[in-house]
Amino acid sequence: MENIKSIAQYTKSFTNQEFHSIIINKHTEIESWFRRQWIKYPAPFYSSIDIRNSGYKIAPIDTNLFPAGFNNLDKKFEFLYISALQHALEKFSPNITKILIITENHTRNQFYISSINTLEKLIKKAGFEVKMCPLCDFDDVDKINLQLSRNNDTLIYDEFIPDIVLLNNDLSQGIPKILENISQPILPDLNLGWTKRSKTIHFQYYSDVIQNFSRVFEIDSWLLEPLFENCGEIDFKTKQGEDCLIDHASKLFRLIEEKYVIYGINEKPYMMIKADSGTYGMGIMLINNIDDIKKINRKQRTKMIKTKGGIKLNKVILQEGIYSNEKFNSNYQVAEPVIYSFGNNLVGGFYRMHGSKNNSENLNSPGMTFYPIPFSEACISPDNSQSIYSDTNKFYIYGVIARLAVLAAAKELYNIEA
Amino acid sequence: MENIKSIAQYTKSFTNQEFHSIIINKHTEIESWFRRQWIKYPAPFYSSIDIRNSGYKIAPIDTNLFPAGFNNLDKKFEFLYISALQHALEKFSPNITKILIITENHTRNQFYISSINTLEKLIKKAGFEVKMCPLCDFDDVDKINLQLSRNNDTLIYDEFIPDIVLLNNDLSQGIPKILENISQPILPDLNLGWTKRSKTIHFQYYSDVIQNFSRVFEIDSWLLEPLFENCGEIDFKTKQGEDCLIDHASKLFRLIEEKYVIYGINEKPYMMIKADSGTYGMGIMLINNIDDIKKINRKQRTKMIKTKGGIKLNKVILQEGIYSNEKFNSNYQVAEPVIYSFGNNLVGGFYRMHGSKNNSENLNSPGMTFYPIPFSEACISPDNSQSIYSDTNKFYIYGVIARLAVLAAAKELYNIEA
Repeated sequence: MENIKSIAQYTKSFTNQEFHSIIINKHTEIESWFRRQWIKYPAPFYSSIDIRNSGYKIAPIDTNLFPAGFNNLDKKFEFLYISALQHALEKFSPNITKILIITENHTRNQFYISSINTLEKLIKKAGFEVKMCPLCDFDDVDKINLQLSRNNDTLIYDEFIPDIVLLNNDLSQGIPKILENISQPILPDLNLGWTKRSKTIHFQYYSDVIQNFSRVFEIDSWLLEPLFENCGEIDFKTKQGEDCLIDHASKLFRLIEEKYVIYGINEKPYMMIKADSGTYGMGIMLINNIDDIKKINRKQRTKMIKTKGGIKLNKVILQEGIYSNEKFNSNYQVAEPVIYSFGNNLVGGFYRMHGSKNNSENLNSPGMTFYPIPFSEACISPDNSQSIYSDTNKFYIYGVIARLAVLAAAKELYNIEA
Repeated sequence: MENIKSIAQYTKSFTNQEFHSIIINKHTEIESWFRRQWIKYPAPFYSSIDIRNSGYKIAPIDTNLFPAGFNNLDKKFEFLYISALQHALEKFSPNITKILIITENHTRNQFYISSINTLEKLIKKAGFEVKMCPLCDFDDVDKINLQLSRNNDTLIYDEFIPDIVLLNNDLSQGIPKILENISQPILPDLNLGWTKRSKTIHFQYYSDVIQNFSRVFEIDSWLLEPLFENCGEIDFKTKQGEDCLIDHASKLFRLIEEKYVIYGINEKPYMMIKADSGTYGMGIMLINNIDDIKKINRKQRTKMIKTKGGIKLNKVILQEGIYSNEKFNSNYQVAEPVIYSFGNNLVGGFYRMHGSKNNSENLNSPGMTFYPIPFSEACISPDNSQSIYSDTNKFYIYGVIARLAVLAAAKELYNIEA
């Protein structure tokens, strides 16, 4: 692989490096801990986790339960994705043969089409019958796809009666009636769609998971999680809720600064304002200080107001900004890892890169490119004979962080179903 | 990879080739069929399957439930073995952390030592604590290992109390008392050792499996199985049972000849006499005609009488010989595939080659070498866009045949436990 500049050079100036070595050295205990977690909290069907690595801390910043980007996975390891899919489906039920994938309506987005085509191909290769259908008719987004129908509680697509329904549509526009109370299982759960879910709730669960993990393995939890605050209702147009936003942001800046002092970090704290139910990197704004909030201009307001599907943004999360201190050696582009899993089976992932963004900015924006993480460098197992900063060990840590985020989503799911 | 001479050139002269295309084209139905089988018959913990491919038929000739040779697996795909191990262990129980491997006593066999060291490393990398111990003390093969003890029903190795015991010893010399009725689960079952198991029983189960499979998918079952006969008690020294052997051999030659006529096969039928509980390629003799049985000389008798561990051979199986019509392009060595699995998870395998053996002889003998089967050519999924004789599709067929043999072993296990 092309070398990613080692994080070691970013980290050597910081004193607290033990979390890397704790995770590498306690590999067996960590794997055993995860095994016990999955018994009680089965992982959602699939997920992709955006991770930021500043060197001194490594944390997830977004957990996507309706992942796209399958086309960016390394094609060389297709058999691994097939095998992981087989396990995830078999674990759910060994009696599945026919699968209907409910996709997004992005008929003009070549990236998305390429992603679902890859997903379809992988599931077929895993030995299942697959049909794909977007929720809405192509010509009229307000209409449910005409080929979808119901026979009492049984969902039917054309003449295809699926054993399960796989959602690759994040339901930003709500839960469609045709999917409610159908007899077939829906993976992941309908209530994990963005109308019901929020980043705040996810990161509350993540924080619980990380408190537990950090206590067991004696790591400062801050090193593995982004701090965050939630502000309730916000109206960017009328500035309703701005005071609250400023209060919470001040608190968050203070907390980050305290940690920076403790660890002797010479970077400038920053934070992201994110749509609490946003996705596709939309509805995201970078804030370097409190004044930035006060000076939000009209263009930014307009940008924040509308997110995916034209849904009005009225809730935001303030999330600690985590510098992405990984760069490609060849072109010095800032890179952040995105890790995929089917169920709790990690399957590697890729680096998201951006040529015109710096190490604090959101890389999930037009102009981004992708570089596969070689799974031969295994996210599933560390190598004690190598440096804790080696690629193999770094990827193992990413695999641990990604699974902690999947576990947080599993707990969301558990509580929805309970 | 180095090319294996395509089987296509061996097969084009035969009329009945549809079994290749049936298996490739009915991929989804076959995977669905397997999924249903594993529900009722969970696969033994691990296995390696010796397969012979004559072009016109592909069949397993030996199913090893205490596999060695892990060192011959392609190291590039280590993460796949780790992941398969995790699934096999998790499926058995998610509460396992400590594993004791009971090994063979081959302390001077570098190949075996290299194999169990690889196995140990893979299980450690999968996130488990592992200790290895041979059944017997190194200095005195008659003594049970002194570090093994019991606290009531709990097996203890030194101070290590395993959660499960993994057998990599085929128990040719019987079931040791110290392992009887212990509180920890033993994988695979003690009764799958060679004192209890026989090739005859395995191939009876295999034949049942293949009758079922062949009926569902409309394939002549002979194309996927070696015919066999069992002779009861044989004493090669006193020639007791020779008449019976001759009768059964005559019958078997007749059956093979009939099939060769039907399919227009211009090869000479042959068969193997194998120790019914033999292993390591020992206790095997090639028979080209009935006279060969009558003329078995003293050297051959002596060779057949003693097999692994000096156990006296008194039961044999007569097995249809299957020509191994695969050769390496570069050195024209005859090659046969050996496929590995953990539980029902295929993990690829290797070719066993022999420079001084022809296409009818046993390749599992001193002088054999190994060449990894590249798993990127996936045994788990065919490719409809390629020829049915392409490597990818050939390996998928091997994967199907290997799993049919694993399923036969799973049925043995099921009936032992029932």
